[in-house]
Amino acid sequence: MTVMTPIAARRPRAESGRDARLLARAGFDGNTAGLAPGYVQGNLAILPREQAADFLRFCTLNPKPCPVIGVSEPGDPRIPMLGEDLDIRTDLPRYRVWRDGELVDEPADITALWREDLVAFVLGCSFSFEEALLAAGVPLRHIACGCNVAMWRTTIACAPAGPFAGPMVVSMRPFRAADAIRAIQITSRFPAVHGAPVHLGDPRLIGIEDLARPHYGDALPVEPDEIPVFWACGVTPQAAIAASRVPFAITHAPGSMLVTDLLNAQLAAF
Amino acid sequence: MTVMTPIAARRPRAESGRDARLLARAGFDGNTAGLAPGYVQGNLAILPREQAADFLRFCTLNPKPCPVIGVSEPGDPRIPMLGEDLDIRTDLPRYRVWRDGELVDEPADITALWREDLVAFVLGCSFSFEEALLAAGVPLRHIACGCNVAMWRTTIACAPAGPFAGPMVVSMRPFRAADAIRAIQITSRFPAVHGAPVHLGDPRLIGIEDLARPHYGDALPVEPDEIPVFWACGVTPQAAIAASRVPFAITHAPGSMLVTDLLNAQLAAF
Repeated sequence: MTVMTPIAARRPRAESGRDARLLARAGFDGNTAGLAPGYVQGNLAILPREQAADFLRFCTLNPKPCPVIGVSEPGDPRIPMLGEDLDIRTDLPRYRVWRDGELVDEPADITALWREDLVAFVLGCSFSFEEALLAAGVPLRHIACGCNVAMWRTTIACAPAGPFAGPMVVSMRPFRAADAIRAIQITSRFPAVHGAPVHLGDPRLIGIEDLARPHYGDALPVEPDEIPVFWACGVTPQAAIAASRVPFAITHAPGSMLVTDLLNAQLAAF
Repeated sequence: MTVMTPIAARRPRAESGRDARLLARAGFDGNTAGLAPGYVQGNLAILPREQAADFLRFCTLNPKPCPVIGVSEPGDPRIPMLGEDLDIRTDLPRYRVWRDGELVDEPADITALWREDLVAFVLGCSFSFEEALLAAGVPLRHIACGCNVAMWRTTIACAPAGPFAGPMVVSMRPFRAADAIRAIQITSRFPAVHGAPVHLGDPRLIGIEDLARPHYGDALPVEPDEIPVFWACGVTPQAAIAASRVPFAITHAPGSMLVTDLLNAQLAAF
């Protein structure tokens, strides 16, 4: 008799943000979704000091897609506000290295690339508000299906700052009306992780032509009694960095996030 | 040369809830909308003690259409929690008297009808959240047009209590998506005056066949880039009282509300 090993059994366990970072440091190379439940996960962007000020200004001007939850000192790979022992060079499972806007490498460690002029930015991610939605009994179809959320570039322009500019990227989650209203209430409490939606209803009003063809992630059906709800997405700053063609940048690889010591519940604004 | 007198100049002024009640007591017979800006206005329902307990249970079970903000002692026409000198028999411009579910009179004073067994209920009204929406720069078309809000009976059933039952009545306000999201956030702060919407988007999902033909109030266009948003409405308890065919009840006449000493800002939950 053959017994299939459930996927969950093959995944490592992490009870805390620190557990998850130690796993990454020890070579864990998977998706961080579901690791260390309750802990805030973040998008990563590392830029040389020369572009870092413009990038921070870009985030400040576009807080919904780019909510900054941590910044390092230039040259310092630690971000103590997000984790006592955190080392940004080793604590994510996988990174992306960008040169002149081109993706050139996807290493599991960036120690060899670290420089005295690099500044690390950590931006809030929708995992936090999705946990709050599920805790409130609001269903999320992409999670029920084991898919990635569907994302699109929109006609909503980000406010530009230096070389950083471009369209807002949004993620879409379909809901029945009562759940859409609850989802707006719940995500409004979490401005540090994209906050309230930026749009709902007719996707063409923000330049999305076809809900069946996302620009990133997986297509999901929207049922006749559902309404699509759109949130600003952390892909926005990554796309702006790529489009800027800055000489050098490092980001997280998709799904390979920084897991912090912050609790999602600590981010609730009210 | 003829100068038209603006309508506003013909309306009496009321700086406070007490001013508005004194106007009604002195014979003012108009709509209370716009009187005493900043002060909470309420829907009125008066029932004999024999039905009052069921009615209060109906309100408790259906808090979105029937948010209770004040109750009198049986036989006592005062409600000090809503106004020191308030006399519910004289302080509304006009009342409706119901016998066996039929509207039998619309007097300006109910002193002659008062009885030792009557209990007065005051329910929150959408004027309060509309003031908060306008203060936040969220446009309200029916107010810009000088119309009544459009209302419909829906297929959402109220939870019944004794003789009181029936459909939830909703009011509709059209918004562009970003304003709809803001409107949900803002009205969520005001559970005592209907709170967050109960529906948005496709009206057929709650049994509304034609947005151009409201059951109460005035039809308003919904533009192609707008989404209709539906709130539970204070007409719900009035309709339930009429449908119950209770032997005797008194309500406010449409638009002729009780103006209280409470400030709208005091009702904000957060």
